[in-house]
Amino acid sequence: MASSRYGDPGVPIGTSFRTRQEVYDAGVHLHTQAGIAGTQPAAQSIVISGGYSDDLDLGDEIFYTGYGGRDPNSGRQIADQELKSWNWALVQNRDLNIPVRVVRGANPGNPYAPASGYRYDGLYDVIGFSPAEGRDGFRIFHYHLIRSPSQIAPAWDEVPTPIRSPGRTSRLVSTIDRDPALAEAVKELHGYRCQISGTRIDTPSGPYAEAAHVKPLGHPHDGPDALNNLLCLCPNDHIRLDRGVLVITEELEVASVASNEVLGSLITDEDHWIDPALLGYHRFIWTDLLRR
Amino acid sequence: MASSRYGDPGVPIGTSFRTRQEVYDAGVHLHTQAGIAGTQPAAQSIVISGGYSDDLDLGDEIFYTGYGGRDPNSGRQIADQELKSWNWALVQNRDLNIPVRVVRGANPGNPYAPASGYRYDGLYDVIGFSPAEGRDGFRIFHYHLIRSPSQIAPAWDEVPTPIRSPGRTSRLVSTIDRDPALAEAVKELHGYRCQISGTRIDTPSGPYAEAAHVKPLGHPHDGPDALNNLLCLCPNDHIRLDRGVLVITEELEVASVASNEVLGSLITDEDHWIDPALLGYHRFIWTDLLRR
Repeated sequence: MASSRYGDPGVPIGTSFRTRQEVYDAGVHLHTQAGIAGTQPAAQSIVISGGYSDDLDLGDEIFYTGYGGRDPNSGRQIADQELKSWNWALVQNRDLNIPVRVVRGANPGNPYAPASGYRYDGLYDVIGFSPAEGRDGFRIFHYHLIRSPSQIAPAWDEVPTPIRSPGRTSRLVSTIDRDPALAEAVKELHGYRCQISGTRIDTPSGPYAEAAHVKPLGHPHDGPDALNNLLCLCPNDHIRLDRGVLVITEELEVASVASNEVLGSLITDEDHWIDPALLGYHRFIWTDLLRR
Repeated sequence: MASSRYGDPGVPIGTSFRTRQEVYDAGVHLHTQAGIAGTQPAAQSIVISGGYSDDLDLGDEIFYTGYGGRDPNSGRQIADQELKSWNWALVQNRDLNIPVRVVRGANPGNPYAPASGYRYDGLYDVIGFSPAEGRDGFRIFHYHLIRSPSQIAPAWDEVPTPIRSPGRTSRLVSTIDRDPALAEAVKELHGYRCQISGTRIDTPSGPYAEAAHVKPLGHPHDGPDALNNLLCLCPNDHIRLDRGVLVITEELEVASVASNEVLGSLITDEDHWIDPALLGYHRFIWTDLLRR
C-alpha cells in the first residue's frame, strides 16, 4: 500500500525487495523509475543504484548526484543539471531538516549495496548541497548525506559505538583534512577583516573571521587547501560565497549571481595571490543556476 | 627533562605517573600545581583532577572549567573567573587550532580517570568556549574539548571505529538534541530576516538565516530548546551573540558589550515572546568579561 509520508516508511531497516515495483508497493520509494521521489516540500526518498558516475557511497555517508542532463543510451552527462523539481526538493531536505529515506540497489562496485535487488537502509540527513563540475564537464548537483543518528545499526556496521549523555546524540562524521595554519595565515594577512564587506568582528577573546575555500575541498570538487584558494571572510559573506549568492570576477570584483551586477571590489593584499582558475571554477558552478 | 613544546610530549598516550612532579619531569604538564600550563600563544596542557564541580568528563569529550575565583579551603566559587592568563590562553587554543595535552588524575567519581596517580591521555582540540553561571552563582568559564582525531585509541575505548576515506578524518561527535521544527518556526516568523541587523540572505535555493539560542543549550547552561529562547539571526550576528559582542537589554535593545552603547532595537514580532530571564542570563555571562 502506497504511503506518502516522510520519515519511517513502516518497514524495518534492512528490508529486502526484489524489484522497484516491490519497493513502490511497500511505500518506501513512490516512483518506479526515478532515483528521487517526492517534491513538496522536500524529497521523501532516494534510490542509489550506481547510475551516476559522480556518486560516492561511504556507507554512513553518501555523496549523491542530482537528476537530469544524462544521455539515456551512453549514461554520460550531455547537459547541465537544473535546480528544479527533485533537485530543488533535495536542497529543501537540508534547509528544512527533513531526513530522506535511502534505498540501495545491487551494484557490484559498491561494498554497501545488497548482492541483489534492493534494500531499505534507513533515514539520512541531507547536510550539504553544492553544484560541481562533473566528470564529463557539465554542471551536476551533489548532495552530502549522513545517516540519521536515530537509526538502528545498518547492515554493514559490525560494531556500533554508542557514547551517549542525556540530551546529546553522538554520531561519526567525517571532516576534510585541512591545515589550520593556512586558515590562520589568511586571517592574519587580512587582519581578520572580510575581503568582501570589510567587516571585522571583535570579540572579547580576539577578532573573529573565517577562512573560506573558493573551490571547495573534498568530493567532488577536490579544491586545494592552499592560500591561493582561500579568502578571509565574515560569516555572512562566507555563506554568500558557499551558497552561490556572490561570485568573484576575473577582475577581482564581487558580483551578484542573481542580478549580474558588480557590487564592489575584493579587498586584496599584494602578498596574497588568488588563483584565477579556482575563481573560474566557482563562477562555473554557481552562475546561471536558475535558468530553465 | 622539561619540554616546552606544543602537541605530542614525547611519551606515549596512556603513560602513567605517580605524582604531579613526575608529570612535570616528563615534560607533559609544566606546572606542579595549576590545572592549566602554558600561556603564549595558547595553553599547552591541562590536568583534570575533579577539583571543579562544574567539570564534566565524557571521555572523548570534556567540559573543562577555567581557573580562579575558588576558595582554597571550601573548594567553592566565591568570585567570578576572569578572562586572563590561562583562561585567555585556552580560548586561543580554539581560535588558533592548537590542541592541548590532557592529563587525568585519580578521581573515584570519574570512570575515565586512572585508579591512582596520573595518566597522559593524548591531545584534545578545544572546540568551544563559553562563560556560564556556575553552581555557586558566580561566573565561570567552560571549555569544550574533544579528542583529536589523530590520536590512537584511548584506554577506555574498547572498539575504535575507523571509517576513513582519503583526505577525510572521521570522529565521533555529540550534538545537543534540538527540534528542527522550532528553528524553522522562528525563521518563518521573521521571514528569514535577522532580528538584529535586518539582513536577509537570499540564496539560489531559498533564504538563509540561523536560529540562535539566547541561553545556550547543553552543559553547563542547559538553556531550553524553545521559541522563547530563540532568535532569528544572520550568521554575523549569531557569532556576535554567541561570543559576547552583543547583549540584549531588558528593553529589547541591542547593546555593545565593549562600550555599553545601545546600537539599536531588536526587531520583534508580536507572536514571538522572548523570555527576559534568558536574556538576563546571557547578559550575566558576557557583561564586563574583561574587567580585571
